[in-house]
Amino acid sequence: MNQAKLPSWRPGAVRDAIEAFLDAAEMIPVERRVAVFDHDGTLWCEKPRYAQLEFYQRELRAAVAQRPRLLDRAEYQAVLDGDRVAIGQLGPVNVALALAELHHGMTPEEYEARVRDFFATARHADRGVPLSQMRYRPMLELIGELRARLFSVYLVTGSGTEFVRAISVSFYGIPPEGVVGSQVGYELDHADGTPRLRRTREIMGDPNEGPAKIVNIQRSLGRRPILAAGNSAGDSQLLEYALASDAPALAMLLHHDDAEREYAYESVAESFESREPIVDTARRRGWNVVSMRRDWATVFANA
Amino acid sequence: MNQAKLPSWRPGAVRDAIEAFLDAAEMIPVERRVAVFDHDGTLWCEKPRYAQLEFYQRELRAAVAQRPRLLDRAEYQAVLDGDRVAIGQLGPVNVALALAELHHGMTPEEYEARVRDFFATARHADRGVPLSQMRYRPMLELIGELRARLFSVYLVTGSGTEFVRAISVSFYGIPPEGVVGSQVGYELDHADGTPRLRRTREIMGDPNEGPAKIVNIQRSLGRRPILAAGNSAGDSQLLEYALASDAPALAMLLHHDDAEREYAYESVAESFESREPIVDTARRRGWNVVSMRRDWATVFANA
Repeated sequence: MNQAKLPSWRPGAVRDAIEAFLDAAEMIPVERRVAVFDHDGTLWCEKPRYAQLEFYQRELRAAVAQRPRLLDRAEYQAVLDGDRVAIGQLGPVNVALALAELHHGMTPEEYEARVRDFFATARHADRGVPLSQMRYRPMLELIGELRARLFSVYLVTGSGTEFVRAISVSFYGIPPEGVVGSQVGYELDHADGTPRLRRTREIMGDPNEGPAKIVNIQRSLGRRPILAAGNSAGDSQLLEYALASDAPALAMLLHHDDAEREYAYESVAESFESREPIVDTARRRGWNVVSMRRDWATVFANA
Repeated sequence: MNQAKLPSWRPGAVRDAIEAFLDAAEMIPVERRVAVFDHDGTLWCEKPRYAQLEFYQRELRAAVAQRPRLLDRAEYQAVLDGDRVAIGQLGPVNVALALAELHHGMTPEEYEARVRDFFATARHADRGVPLSQMRYRPMLELIGELRARLFSVYLVTGSGTEFVRAISVSFYGIPPEGVVGSQVGYELDHADGTPRLRRTREIMGDPNEGPAKIVNIQRSLGRRPILAAGNSAGDSQLLEYALASDAPALAMLLHHDDAEREYAYESVAESFESREPIVDTARRRGWNVVSMRRDWATVFANA
């Protein structure tokens, strides 16, 4: 393979493994060339806060300006404060249900407009650049190489499906149906004779993390990945599932070990196996650990 | 437009409406060019029995040969007999739950293999031809014209999602993720160290009929159709939803009025509005009623 195709990847065992997979994939039937990527922390920076948390903070500030009593609700105060301890104590599902109420009754088009408005003006908290610039250039190059080999490329995210769909085409060329995420409820409102789909207060099923990612891939996509990339304990099942394919497969775990160019932090597996840094799990299980510091010549997109 | 492009459509108001829509669509942004088709009775013949019912009958016969006591279960007897009255009395959801037990524990690959095996050998009950020949040629031509204009084309079916996915590529060129149907449950089995997805005994959510079709389009595809085609009361909301788009839109209702070349039968709307033949609803609401007898020069594919 012409190594100029992955210019942001430094030579080494990881790039060799990717190149070997890309070469091997050309022998696999096209319909089985399926690659799935986690989003936050895998395709773009998730620190200091998830983009969706910043979106909800912004939505909450706007809502509180109209109805200050909203702050009586502990879930909203915890989100506004970005208080992870409080969110954990209140229960993430309760917080998610409270947040779903904020957009209850909106049509998909209305919700999407709010998300697009957020992305149009949001800047990264530490760097002050548009969020599109926080995408990882090496991953964009990899997606390009996969597409050049006729792979179908999908996003499998713990964030809300519609939140990510609002940028999946412009950020990654992935259409809405290629995004598998956490789901809210919908109902069809026929009140004035015109059918309108509206968001409900419900959360549908489990958050799209861990085993739920596999179930939702089957339900939404119906195809089994042979490449999976993630960065946290919630991606463990995803990587294992891809590796258990009977075709050549590649599991990639991005290790955030670059405090200078990005952030240095560790995801700890609490449920998958005994509590250990996910990087240790990866090494035991033969996933390719991508060291941001060692393997990436360039980190961010300049878009 | 060159009328040779829809050779199986006879000249008339319906073909004119399709051609006008195809012309108008070229001015619509590509990402909004979304067409959805119901499956049974819209893209292929659903008489004398749904293909999925025949599949379940075959699966049941194989299971009963091993375990005759299965016939003690009224739901299985009713399915084997094709007894619609009994199925209605037992409750379609109870019957669906009983049928889900037949494939409980199977992986998606194992289930798909059974469906493929069915389609490889099944013949139409009245005509004795492979089921692929029961596809409607005019609809295949329409799908071709839509694709030539860069439409995304999806299947929205009341049948099981995975049942239809097994033939969606070979019959219609629609990938698995483009099929939105009724859903069973899945669970991730990690018992022997290798992750396997297995079908559960559960049915997830409502059957994919009526308003559920709209909700599931949003959840799975995240795109709003501007063309919808159906043939029964369960497609009413689908057609209305497409027509309520703010872009040029087309709603098509196929009327099975051709006893000579196919079958003559009527779908009666019981829940959508007052009980009436769906064709009457269509005329009142401005859907294009496609008369098989009048509008189609050829009915079936010769594949």
